[in-house]
Amino acid sequence: MRFLDACRRKRTDRVPVWFMRQAGRYMPEYRKLRQKWSILQLAKTPELACEVTLQPIDAFPVDAAILFADILLPLEPMGAKLRFAPGPVIDNPVRAAKDVARLRDFDPDEGLGYVAESVRLIRRELDGKVPLIGFAGAPFTLCSYLIEGGPSDDFRTTKAFMAEQPQAWDKLMRLVRQITADYLWMQVRAGAQALQLFDSWIGALTPEQYRRHVQPHSRFVLESLRGSGVPVISFGTGTGGFLEDFASAGGDVIGVDWRVDLDAAWKRIGRKAIQGNLDPILLLGDRKPLKEAVADVLRRSGGKPGYVFNLGHGILPPTPVDNVKAVVDWVHAWRPS
Amino acid sequence: MRFLDACRRKRTDRVPVWFMRQAGRYMPEYRKLRQKWSILQLAKTPELACEVTLQPIDAFPVDAAILFADILLPLEPMGAKLRFAPGPVIDNPVRAAKDVARLRDFDPDEGLGYVAESVRLIRRELDGKVPLIGFAGAPFTLCSYLIEGGPSDDFRTTKAFMAEQPQAWDKLMRLVRQITADYLWMQVRAGAQALQLFDSWIGALTPEQYRRHVQPHSRFVLESLRGSGVPVISFGTGTGGFLEDFASAGGDVIGVDWRVDLDAAWKRIGRKAIQGNLDPILLLGDRKPLKEAVADVLRRSGGKPGYVFNLGHGILPPTPVDNVKAVVDWVHAWRPS
Repeated sequence: MRFLDACRRKRTDRVPVWFMRQAGRYMPEYRKLRQKWSILQLAKTPELACEVTLQPIDAFPVDAAILFADILLPLEPMGAKLRFAPGPVIDNPVRAAKDVARLRDFDPDEGLGYVAESVRLIRRELDGKVPLIGFAGAPFTLCSYLIEGGPSDDFRTTKAFMAEQPQAWDKLMRLVRQITADYLWMQVRAGAQALQLFDSWIGALTPEQYRRHVQPHSRFVLESLRGSGVPVISFGTGTGGFLEDFASAGGDVIGVDWRVDLDAAWKRIGRKAIQGNLDPILLLGDRKPLKEAVADVLRRSGGKPGYVFNLGHGILPPTPVDNVKAVVDWVHAWRPS
Repeated sequence: MRFLDACRRKRTDRVPVWFMRQAGRYMPEYRKLRQKWSILQLAKTPELACEVTLQPIDAFPVDAAILFADILLPLEPMGAKLRFAPGPVIDNPVRAAKDVARLRDFDPDEGLGYVAESVRLIRRELDGKVPLIGFAGAPFTLCSYLIEGGPSDDFRTTKAFMAEQPQAWDKLMRLVRQITADYLWMQVRAGAQALQLFDSWIGALTPEQYRRHVQPHSRFVLESLRGSGVPVISFGTGTGGFLEDFASAGGDVIGVDWRVDLDAAWKRIGRKAIQGNLDPILLLGDRKPLKEAVADVLRRSGGKPGYVFNLGHGILPPTPVDNVKAVVDWVHAWRPS
């Protein structure tokens, strides 16, 4: 299949395309479900998670489905009190070694069995139409939510934790990385045909903070999945300053944001596939600059095997559905000249 | 003088150090003045601007003073209704060609004469103790405030403006770049011994947006200052993905944030001086990791001529004064091994 082939750097007939958050608030079908159900209810009810996952597949000829879930789901069975208000809030944030000690390891088949059930159901419903991508948050991004207690502008509490309590940080990251690896393996056993590890906020760090406090743990997750047989996408934003380090942690495909030129970024990551890097803001606006930007990204891919079209981050809620459709069509119509 | 010599890539006895926002809320002396005066009152009253500028010079042996002012001051004489509530708000944002047409060019000696007066007064008070840095906001950062009407997370209105109204954008940037160049020249005539151009939010752009819609205008400002005889620092954050392009716009010194390794960044910018790149968050925390991070930045400078120690962005308000003092001392004590 086109998407899986590109992840493995095989030549494809067209450039494959999917979108981060392709199942989400910009779709009227999704907003309708959200009037009745919370994010957590949707994620925890396999029939609903399946329905949401399939909404963009029914609407656009995208080349992959991505499981509907939330990167923070594993935090609950670890013992975090997670709610959405509407952004994520953790009522018992981790601030000291004693908080880390209180967190629980768990068997994902028990704590997150509903995700495996969703994956099985979606695979059945997709019936081979497009491959299904499973995913998880990367250890840094997950731990930053655990420590900050929600989203953050500058991750000051997380940075202080890693610098000032390095042993507690190490213990926390070791727990989270093992849970993340187990959770992703569970998704593969349930039928996920590719995986994406989301390190959405990694770009807040200095390269040195990344190498010392984060990279070994990301590497653990990415290496542990090598034997799974499915391609793994390692995604981060704001990685333009340390892309070589980020890529060297592992993964078959490196996901980049819009703050790099795709061709220059691909050179820097070396012999791996690459995914991205359209600015999501452009999908809010007029077609002409949107089309030019899509063409620029495609041109920079050079038509080489190993490129997966995507945005540099998730689709924004105010995005017009028609713009998403247009981008899919432009990508599929493109041929290297 | 140590700072000016480093800007010109001359060898210095010690690494020079100053801090962006070294005169600001983290200092009790500044907070005391702010109880009585607004930011605009402080900036517009030369005696007060001088007093604030000198506060860090009296408190720490930093190697340069930076004029107390606000990058948004030139927007007022252009016709923008600027207030601080407490963040900057512009009540008549620029959204269309007609709004651009309404903006006024002005002679900085008239519209911003109080800044020249501050510079003259500060130079007199400094009496050669340390050089005085003047500054201005770069055209993109200024225009983003004009268009968004205040700070923004993702600059969606600015990006839409540049993409969808390219002629109005060009006209706006040409006006702002000329005003910026004139304003900086005025500061040089009044006695500024170095200049910094702040493009604080440039890292929100794609490299292509930067090259097409911004770089020519930044270049205009930077090139127009070549004959001024004073070194010019071109500062941006989030530039790790297109540092070569950013540096090629001009400037004698390139200011980088904390998201790059200093040595790798210096290689990428080539034969220019470099300034930065300590993570400002580290100044909120314990001394041990702070000292290690300062040592890492200094080690990466390699002791080569042309390095100015600074943070990767401004000092954060909750920063303990003692940590600022400690950093100055560590930088001055350092010798390449």
